[in-house]
Formats: sequence, C-alpha cells, structure tokens
Amino acid sequence: MKTSLFSSILSRRISLAEIFVPCNVGHLRDALGGHACMRNAAYSTGGQNFAATGSIMDRIFAPYTVYKGKAALSLTPVLPTFTKLESGNGLRVDRRGNMMMKFWPAIGERKYDWEKRQLFALSATEIGAFISLGPTDSCEFFHDPSMKTSNAGQVRKSLSIKPHQDGSGYFISLSVVNNLLKSMDRITVPVTTAEFAVMKTACSFALPHIMGWDRYTSHQRPRVGENPSKVNPQMLDSEWDR
Amino acid sequence: MKTSLFSSILSRRISLAEIFVPCNVGHLRDALGGHACMRNAAYSTGGQNFAATGSIMDRIFAPYTVYKGKAALSLTPVLPTFTKLESGNGLRVDRRGNMMMKFWPAIGERKYDWEKRQLFALSATEIGAFISLGPTDSCEFFHDPSMKTSNAGQVRKSLSIKPHQDGSGYFISLSVVNNLLKSMDRITVPVTTAEFAVMKTACSFALPHIMGWDRYTSHQRPRVGENPSKVNPQMLDSEWDR
Amino acid sequence: MKTSLFSSILSRRISLAEIFVPCNVGHLRDALGGHACMRNAAYSTGGQNFAATGSIMDRIFAPYTVYKGKAALSLTPVLPTFTKLESGNGLRVDRRGNMMMKFWPAIGERKYDWEKRQLFALSATEIGAFISLGPTDSCEFFHDPSMKTSNAGQVRKSLSIKPHQDGSGYFISLSVVNNLLKSMDRITVPVTTAEFAVMKTACSFALPHIMGWDRYTSHQRPRVGENPSKVNPQMLDSEWDR
Amino acid sequence: MKTSLFSSILSRRISLAEIFVPCNVGHLRDALGGHACMRNAAYSTGGQNFAATGSIMDRIFAPYTVYKGKAALSLTPVLPTFTKLESGNGLRVDRRGNMMMKFWPAIGERKYDWEKRQLFALSATEIGAFISLGPTDSCEFFHDPSMKTSNAGQVRKSLSIKPHQDGSGYFISLSVVNNLLKSMDRITVPVTTAEFAVMKTACSFALPHIMGWDRYTSHQRPRVGENPSKVNPQMLDSEWDR
Repeated sequence: MKTSLFSSILSRRISLAEIFVPCNVGHLRDALGGHACMRNAAYSTGGQNFAATGSIMDRIFAPYTVYKGKAALSLTPVLPTFTKLESGNGLRVDRRGNMMMKFWPAIGERKYDWEKRQLFALSATEIGAFISLGPTDSCEFFHDPSMKTSNAGQVRKSLSIKPHQDGSGYFISLSVVNNLLKSMDRITVPVTTAEFAVMKTACSFALPHIMGWDRYTSHQRPRVGENPSKVNPQMLDSEWDR
Repeated sequence: MKTSLFSSILSRRISLAEIFVPCNVGHLRDALGGHACMRNAAYSTGGQNFAATGSIMDRIFAPYTVYKGKAALSLTPVLPTFTKLESGNGLRVDRRGNMMMKFWPAIGERKYDWEKRQLFALSATEIGAFISLGPTDSCEFFHDPSMKTSNAGQVRKSLSIKPHQDGSGYFISLSVVNNLLKSMDRITVPVTTAEFAVMKTACSFALPHIMGWDRYTSHQRPRVGENPSKVNPQMLDSEWDR
Repeated sequence: MKTSLFSSILSRRISLAEIFVPCNVGHLRDALGGHACMRNAAYSTGGQNFAATGSIMDRIFAPYTVYKGKAALSLTPVLPTFTKLESGNGLRVDRRGNMMMKFWPAIGERKYDWEKRQLFALSATEIGAFISLGPTDSCEFFHDPSMKTSNAGQVRKSLSIKPHQDGSGYFISLSVVNNLLKSMDRITVPVTTAEFAVMKTACSFALPHIMGWDRYTSHQRPRVGENPSKVNPQMLDSEWDR
Repeated sequence: MKTSLFSSILSRRISLAEIFVPCNVGHLRDALGGHACMRNAAYSTGGQNFAATGSIMDRIFAPYTVYKGKAALSLTPVLPTFTKLESGNGLRVDRRGNMMMKFWPAIGERKYDWEKRQLFALSATEIGAFISLGPTDSCEFFHDPSMKTSNAGQVRKSLSIKPHQDGSGYFISLSVVNNLLKSMDRITVPVTTAEFAVMKTACSFALPHIMGWDRYTSHQRPRVGENPSKVNPQMLDSEWDR
C-alpha cells in the first residue's frame, strides 16, 4: 500500500463563525475523482494570536526523541485551542492540534545542530495514515506552508516513511525545498521496529487529544441536576428531528 | 463479513426505575433465532428534558469532518447523561451516549448546504461493528426514529459502509426515506484509509466515554478513609453471595 | 487455542502487610509443570469492610447489557480499593478490581428475572484471556467461591466462551453448580461480533483501571517543587541498587 | 523476528539545559550501520535528588504480579519527573519514566524471597519492543548500570522473552552477572498468553504516561481566554517558520 496525501494549508485565519469547523484533510486521490482542495483551519496563523495561544500549548516538554548517527527526530503532540461560543454556552475548536515532528542533523559524534532543525506538523488524518502503516507499507505527505499566498509553491515539504528491506524498521525522511532561500534539505532518520511501535502507540494515544476529543468526558461536565443557562436550540441536533 | 443491525428506537421515555438499564442493542440476526426486538433507552426523548440535558452534552464542538466533492461527513461523540439514585448513593446512566454522524451535501466548489444535513446516531453496539470492520468488510445499520409510535415505518434511515474495490478506503452512505415529507435522500462520502483509521481510533477512544465507563475511575471517588453515607446493601452484589 | 484458567479464591482476608500484593492469577496449566495454586487477594471479603468500600466502588451504574431471547448479560467494571501505607507516604491496592458479569434468564417476551441472576467476576488475567480471544478461539474459567473453607467444592462456577460456527459471534455461558442449595443453573447468551467488539474494547479500556494503574498519572501527583514528607528509603527501589 | 537492544545508561546526571531531552534509546543494530551509543537521561541518578523525587513516583503500589512455582514477577510503571523551565513558563521532563520489572525466587511452596529480588527497568523503546512482540517472536535487552563509570562492565543484566514452543505463552528471564559481588543470578518466570495479554495491554496504557504525554491534555491547561504570562517566543516553533 502506498498512501499519498497532500495537505493544502491556508496561511490566513479562517473565520469559524460557521456552525462547523473545516477539517484538516486534503489529498490528491479523492475517491470520487474530484479535485477538492480542502480548507484547513488547523494551521491558520494570526501573528499575535498564535504567539499567545501557542505558548499555552507548548508548556509541556516531553518529546519522544530518537538519536541516530546522522540526525535526530522528535515527536511532540500539539493540542488544539478552543474559543468560547458567543452564546456563552460551549467551546469550539479554534486551531486544530497536530503531531509536530522535528528533524535536526548530526554535526559530530553525539552532537546535533538544533539550529538546522526542520519541522513537519502531522494533521489528524496524516496521523491516521501513520498509525495504520503495516510492516511493508510506505507513505508520503506533502505540505506547502505558503499555499494560497503569493509565495505558493516556493516552499515544498515532503515527509516519507519507508520500510527497511529486512523488515527491521523504517526510514523517516523530511525534504524541504525552499526557493526563497535557495535551499534544499533532506534529513533521514532510521527507526527500529521498537521505536516505531512507541511512535504508533503514542500517536494513537495522542490522536483524540489532538482532535480535542479528550474534552468529551463526563468528568468535566456540570454535575447532574445543574441547570445549563441559555440553551441554544439551534445547537441541539437529534437524529429524530430530521 | 456482512453485518446487518436493526436498531429499534423507542420514542417515548423509558422508566429507568429498574435496577438495570436496557441496552441499545437490536439486530435482525439474533443468534438464538429469536425475533427479539430490543428496547433502547438510549435515544428516548422527553421534549424539554432532552433540550435541557442535550445542551450540556453538546457544549464541546470538536467534530472530525471530512469534506469531499459531493458531500461532507462529521463525527461527534455525544456523552450519556446520568441521574442520581434516589438513595443519594450513586449515579445511573439515564440517556446513553452515541456517535453522531452528520452528512450534508455540497452545493458548489467547497460550498456545503448545512440546512440539508442528515443525522445518524451510532449506538455503542453499532460503534462496535464499525471499529471491528476489516479492510474488505461492509456493514449496514437501520434506524426507525418513529418506531412504536403511530408514525412507525414512516421514516427509515439506513447507513451503509462499503470498502472501495481497490482497498483504498470506504464509501459511507446515509439513505433517508421520509414518507411524511415525501422525501428520499441519499448522501455518500468516500473516506480514505487514513481518514477511516482516524474514525476507528477516535471511536475506540470515545466508546467507553459514550458508555459512561470513564466515570469508573479511581480519581473521581472519595479518598480512602472517607465514609460513604447511606450504604444501600441491596446494591452490593458480590460473586460470592450467589 | 483453548485457554483454561482456574482461579482459586480465598474467602478469608489476606494480610497485605507485605511489600507485595499477591496477584489474582491461578491456572491449571502452569508452563513449568507445577501445581501452584495461587493466592488471590483480589476477592478477599471482610464483611463490614466489604460493604463499606463496596458501596464506594458501586456508585456508578453504567453496565453494558445485551438482551437476548432467553437471557440477558451485563458487564460492569469494579474498581480496586486502596489503603494508606502506615508510613503515610503512599497508597497500596487493598482489594483488586474485576469485571463483573451478570446473567439473568428471560421469563417471557422482553421480561427478565433479575432475582435469578448469577454472577461471575473476571480477574485481570481472565480479562487478559478474554480480550486476546481470536475469532475462532474459545476459553473457559472456573471459580470456587468457597475454596479453602469448609465449603470448598460445594459451589462451582464455570464461564465458557465459544465462537459461533459461522463466525458471527460467540456463546457466553455461565454454569453454577451449588451442592448446598442442590441447584444447577446454566445461562447462555449469544453475542454478535459487534457486541463482542464493544466488550473487548470496553474491557481493554477498563483493565488498567481495574488494576489500579489509572492512579499512575502525572496529574495526581504533587506539583514539581513540592517537598514530599517522610521519604521512606525502603521503598525506593532502583534498578541500579541491585 | 529477534530484537536485540542495548541500553547504555549514564550514571551521572545529564544537564537538561538544552532545549531537547536526549531520549532513552540505544541499540546495537543501528539501521544506518553506525555505532552510535546513545545517551540516556532517563536513569541518571543524583543521590538525594533521586530519593526525593523517587518517593513521589513510588507512592502508588499497584503492581501486576504473577506467582509461579519457581519465582514471581511484577510490573510497575514509574512515572517521569518534571522540572519547571527557568522562564517559569512550562514543564520539561527531567527523569524519564520506565516500566519496572521485579523478579524474586521461590523458597518453598507459595513462599518467595523478596530480599533476593532483581530489577530491570524497561525504557519507552524497550516497552515498544515488548508490546509489538508477536506470538512467535522473542527479544532480549541488555543493561549495564555502571556504564561510563570505573565500574563499567562489572554488572551486566540481560532480560529475555521467549515464546513457549506450543504457543501457550512466554518465558521471561532475567540474568544478572555481578563481578563485584562475584554473583550470577538467573530467574525465569513462565507467563501464560492471558497474563502476557494483561502485560501488553497494561504497558500500552502506561507507555504514554511513562513518556509524560498524559500531561498533554486539554483539561490541565488554562481556560480559554486566560492570558499566559511571559511568553517565550524562542519556544514557539511553527512548521511555517522554517
């Protein structure tokens, strides 16, 4: 199986005033044959806003890192942010979470150059492709951080995951072609079956958190008997109403 | 494997005064050959009551949504509600949770008609069928929201999940035949293997929450040494007593 | 694969003053060929004590129940209880948790006789056997609630899980032979693949909670920088010390 | 598949002032053919510091233990510790967690000698190897607690997991060769398929906690709208910045 995804990312802030949040999904091989280029609210950036909420999200530093001969690779979950509904009656996902992969090259024995790190943020659906990889499967994801801006196509990132021929693990590679900086980087980190198992287990654990679904829990809600104020009947969808 | 389930839903409120809660399970192919048409307390609606508790359940908006050429599909967990026991000594599931699937058609490039959305609420057991689907399996669920009312059979909903022939994902279709409105809708959304992996992982995560089992956790209980008041010995069942 | 477990349960309270807690494991086919009949602290009962802590554990009522033509079956997790260490510096599992299965027969169409219910409490290891069952596997567990008392052998319970021949699910049967009451009961409930998937997913979710491992979480511990008082160096085992 | 890992452990405290934490990974068969001997901050010990934080980590006693004819084996998760960032704006993993395995021999019928216990602390990656073991796979891990000290090579520990020939479970063996004490111990515990399923499920559950990823949860963060103070822009990495 070869999975190929193409995530087109908007660099401008998408209004989330609509009732639904566009999901961070885009791919070249649409099963209906369409060319739908999906909107992605997950990575919309708003300058100051990002700095503010970003700092909240990044407060825990517990990356899973593998150090190899030529480079290092770390995984860190980034949680979504929420905004209050104007009705005052709920929270809605504002910026979706992701699994941040960081690659940085070795510059000597057990020395690594953090300044040369390259980043790739896996969306929920890309995590889905990642955790469903079989031992002989490979996959590749493409990101264009500048899509739909005047710089579209200037920076192209591609993450590929390929199995070792002897089945003992995978090669994980990040390629970054930056026409603006006239640079081209490729960092490859081999991971063992055991390390990959950690990544898959940890990503499966983190996925619902990245989606914001850890908020759907009985523990966080008002106790039984409490009266919710300002019920907005527009929001109450029941299967039986339609 | 072809799984076929038929959930008969009561539209009236079932009394939960009994010690046990009827589970949301019904299916055509009963292994004992019976024609048992199971009661389902999960979706019982009580007008005002539903509005009140529904608003509590719906306060988090973090759907997983896939936008495709002809339609969009979102999944959102809906948590159960609890009522206090009359003895004051516990909580019992009142309305069971579900996984709400929403379908709405495209009406142009990247434009979708939210007003035409159709809903289908997967019960715990239907989620069980969903998450155990293999790559070549299909399944179909049937709901009659008006069952056991004078409108029984007037609205028939059917959700089907069928694999792509090339193994690259699934078609998820919702058909709604509404004799009252003389309408017939069918919305199909193709999902990739990666998107389906997200749905399965997220549904597996959400299932215990939908069942109310996230309440069974050491953290929520009184600290060791605290005295529970009003112990109701009727409720204390031990294997060794019988 | 046919797994056969035999859990011998002590009916007297086992002292837990030792540093380790005997685990609820016993089985006929010991891989070393021994006949070790394991101690089981999990179900030790202490009359009043059980009533007191039992009421804490049973305060949530969210069973997963399947109603079939001839009988009904429900699963409910039972959490462990903890006692404070005498040093005041920790909590130790006192009574281990289990997955309580309850069976009760039908006495008419959609009518069930709760008074005739029979119970079987799956230990952590029996849950392990349950969740690792493949589609064609079967297993059987044996319990003697009165083991090591003068009534040993008087009551014998056996739970068996066998696949349907067409692979569409399992038969779950509980047999109870009670020589004291001169009674012999056998209740069988067929479960579909979907229902079994719910049970497996829910049991996998519940297992760490039943073991008390949900207590091992960063969130519950003192904040960084807080000083733990009364450090008991006896308890601090490091791999490097031995 | 035969997996062989070699974890080299530093006995001195590693400075964690760098932005990244070296991960507890080391193995003989580096896929790139290198001989990279990875640093491991996870088990660094700092005397008093360890005692202090260790007592916090060890406060819950809920081991999963199997008692067999010749020896007993228990598993207990050990959580990581965190330190506050100097900026006051976050927490960073200080000491990584592990899965502590303890072996102790039988000295009679149902009597075990706790004083002769031997310990082996599985790192995150070793847990990854453990939980991805298939029914016919085996694996072996090597630890040298004194590596990079003058006592390097004096104590060698090796944990091996091998399947029973009939597929009914595994043998788990710990060998400890201590040249300083002129001692050589080998303790083997057979575990059934059911017991191994408990270990795998429990280790999969515990892995994210051991990695500190249970801290990445929406519930622990400031409410939406709260202002984080002292945002350190150095820490805010976005995929789009590089």
